[in-house]
Amino acid sequence: MITYSFTDIGSDSLYIHLYKCIKKDIIQGVLHAGEKLPSKRSLAKNLNISVITIENAYAQLIAEGYVYSVPKKGFYVADIMSLHKKEETILSTENVRLSSGSTGYFADFTSNQTSSEHFPFSIWAKLTRELLTHNQPELLTNSPCGGILPLREAIAKHLKDFRNMTVTPEQIIIGAGTEYLYGLLIQLLGFHKRYAVEDPGYSKISQIYESHHISCYFASMDAFGVNISDLERQEIDIVHISPSHHFPTGIVMPVSRRYELLAWAAKSGMRYIIEDDYDSEYRLNGQPIPTLQSIDVQEKVIYVNTFTKTLASTVRISYMVLPKHLVNTFYSRLYFYSCTVSNFEQYTLARFISEGYFEKHINRMRSYFHNKRDKLLNAIEKSPLAAYVTISEEDAGLHFLLKINTELSDEEFLQRLEQSGIKLSSLSQYYRIPPQKVEHIFIVNYSFVAEENIDKAIQLIYRSLF
Amino acid sequence: MITYSFTDIGSDSLYIHLYKCIKKDIIQGVLHAGEKLPSKRSLAKNLNISVITIENAYAQLIAEGYVYSVPKKGFYVADIMSLHKKEETILSTENVRLSSGSTGYFADFTSNQTSSEHFPFSIWAKLTRELLTHNQPELLTNSPCGGILPLREAIAKHLKDFRNMTVTPEQIIIGAGTEYLYGLLIQLLGFHKRYAVEDPGYSKISQIYESHHISCYFASMDAFGVNISDLERQEIDIVHISPSHHFPTGIVMPVSRRYELLAWAAKSGMRYIIEDDYDSEYRLNGQPIPTLQSIDVQEKVIYVNTFTKTLASTVRISYMVLPKHLVNTFYSRLYFYSCTVSNFEQYTLARFISEGYFEKHINRMRSYFHNKRDKLLNAIEKSPLAAYVTISEEDAGLHFLLKINTELSDEEFLQRLEQSGIKLSSLSQYYRIPPQKVEHIFIVNYSFVAEENIDKAIQLIYRSLF
Repeated sequence: MITYSFTDIGSDSLYIHLYKCIKKDIIQGVLHAGEKLPSKRSLAKNLNISVITIENAYAQLIAEGYVYSVPKKGFYVADIMSLHKKEETILSTENVRLSSGSTGYFADFTSNQTSSEHFPFSIWAKLTRELLTHNQPELLTNSPCGGILPLREAIAKHLKDFRNMTVTPEQIIIGAGTEYLYGLLIQLLGFHKRYAVEDPGYSKISQIYESHHISCYFASMDAFGVNISDLERQEIDIVHISPSHHFPTGIVMPVSRRYELLAWAAKSGMRYIIEDDYDSEYRLNGQPIPTLQSIDVQEKVIYVNTFTKTLASTVRISYMVLPKHLVNTFYSRLYFYSCTVSNFEQYTLARFISEGYFEKHINRMRSYFHNKRDKLLNAIEKSPLAAYVTISEEDAGLHFLLKINTELSDEEFLQRLEQSGIKLSSLSQYYRIPPQKVEHIFIVNYSFVAEENIDKAIQLIYRSLF
Repeated sequence: MITYSFTDIGSDSLYIHLYKCIKKDIIQGVLHAGEKLPSKRSLAKNLNISVITIENAYAQLIAEGYVYSVPKKGFYVADIMSLHKKEETILSTENVRLSSGSTGYFADFTSNQTSSEHFPFSIWAKLTRELLTHNQPELLTNSPCGGILPLREAIAKHLKDFRNMTVTPEQIIIGAGTEYLYGLLIQLLGFHKRYAVEDPGYSKISQIYESHHISCYFASMDAFGVNISDLERQEIDIVHISPSHHFPTGIVMPVSRRYELLAWAAKSGMRYIIEDDYDSEYRLNGQPIPTLQSIDVQEKVIYVNTFTKTLASTVRISYMVLPKHLVNTFYSRLYFYSCTVSNFEQYTLARFISEGYFEKHINRMRSYFHNKRDKLLNAIEKSPLAAYVTISEEDAGLHFLLKINTELSDEEFLQRLEQSGIKLSSLSQYYRIPPQKVEHIFIVNYSFVAEENIDKAIQLIYRSLF
């Protein structure tokens, strides 16, 4: 039985001394995890002290997690190995990413962050002020789980006007970012379905599926978009695509492939297509191609879009349009979720859209990005870099592809750029297993790069070649 | 082979007529799902029309999802049964819950909605205005995935001042409502762990676990809170509790049970306790009991709290405090998620807390609810209802228990109340399998009932007894 000397007790009380002795033995491994401690009575007898002293010492050890009691059995040493390791946990500022999203590069061609000079602050402030003054009861009335009606009505009208989509407000579900909506979709469509994402693709989507322990497969792409044979071969139920403007290749899926994809989905009641229309507002040249949702008569398409690209990446509002038969399933199964977007911002955005500010804002942004793209293309053309590059997919969205004629490996080139303060990503980084032919192709996302830095950035890219 | 007459073609073109004929046969089931259609060439020969006409008709049928093509094989009839059913889907306003959260009862003793007369609109408007004017770059700079630093610092200080909890801002993760945070916790702690919730309990929590296809078990309660033997018996890894004020029983877990629970968790590295402290700010009498988090030395407790109770149910901001060793796991596994709360509201709330407004607001609300509770208890005491009821657990949170001496079944009584415009819930409704002894106990949540309706509401409850 454990025995301790009480000669070196100092100013401690008996129970504190005993507590310290046992704690030390546990920490040093003299007493092992799971080991039974003597009963209070027998230890009291052994140490020749009162039962109440033992009781107090044990209570303190239990309180601090070193010992646990099993009713009617006795006291046991807790497993404190994990405690030991935990005491060493160091939270560095870096490893918990307290730092903000601003990137510190001279030119970051990978960031989607929107710039504050283009956010319509004065209109937003005006609408917020009016709402906080005149609409207090609505602001404090719980939102339906799909979002407040005025915002869903405004979005339905916007979709009609801009994408020629006929949807009812009931089909629209508002959520705090598309990432959140993907989580809801998994709960709606099922954890045991087989999901596919595009390869190459936006890695966050597969990360979300994998984080939900979902079977997530990768479907290859040809010049028209996702390969349907790959969906068939892998027995996919749900495919997640961005047909309007694929990231990173920039491919716009032609109508023929869209119909083939709808036909693929029509073959089974389990099959659905998640259409991520994330930057369709920024098509710069040519007619927009109809969304899959708008040509889908079989109710196979779930349309997803966001205001984080068009308004601000820091205002977290996205939405999805469910096929009608899924609306009822959604409400019967997921009705208990509160809407994740605050009423204050839902009402502000509803008015921002319905009073025409959103349309004006998009037009302004489109012409701003059109200009910026032209400036960037011009800067390349004027520079000696022009002799080494081929540009493609520059008509849609906020990025294009730059093929560079160089002997440098992608890794080496990107490293050199990084040293010059330029952040760029390579097409190969977005592949599960990058094929040979995508070497030396880079993605130029120009949304966050300051216009005045463009010329210098091109110069720096050129210099990094040698 | 299918054959159609072209005599009744009317003004249709040949291909439209053919398309309509085939479509009709598919809808009426003359042509079956999966049936192969004749090749274009052979059908053209059979009908004595051009191949291009067949091609156009088939293309239209494919476009509308009635037919699909299999490369190198031919054309097949799609499975339109689901389409049929879908066409009948009716979206009633009711089944998609477009209606707002306001309840339409004379007195709703079940709603958690906060009332607009108590929200600090003028301060909120002032802070918003200042931020939109002076802090534009911060507002548009992407938030770290755990939330902006000033808000996490303000919460850490608040937890120190009000709950005597010592936590670093790095341990705090901000999210759009506790429901969202529970989803993150499942991804962090694992889909294959065994989770337990309290029985009786707040049904939304088990709904969320079940919606994520998690093994969710139910642990019974005694007078001190959750039964640890039930956790052992069911081999639970993660237990989700509200020890400060259990809903609906109102039990405040004594310190002894808290230590027992921590000891339970210490026995295995897999075990964790989710401590939901949802309404601890509203303890009306007596000293608050220390949170589990503050007496946890083994890093076993994940603390969760929300501003939806203290500020507004429509402002969706909650947070969790992770044990240090889980912080690094969180960031290494879930770093790719964007914070779900918009920067605009994160910054507003950060200033609302750090400038002392939140403390004042809580104090004001606590005294308001104290008053309201007293008014309600008085109204019961003065009423003939007093002879039929026993009140318990009235010292904490915003609800208490009312035991009514009646022969009526709970169901019958609640139905009668409903007819009088009173919404009340019974304790039995919150049990997985309600035991006999909880008959005739009702939960009186007084947060949303207008003060001026209290006397009348008590009268209506009394009358419903006979």
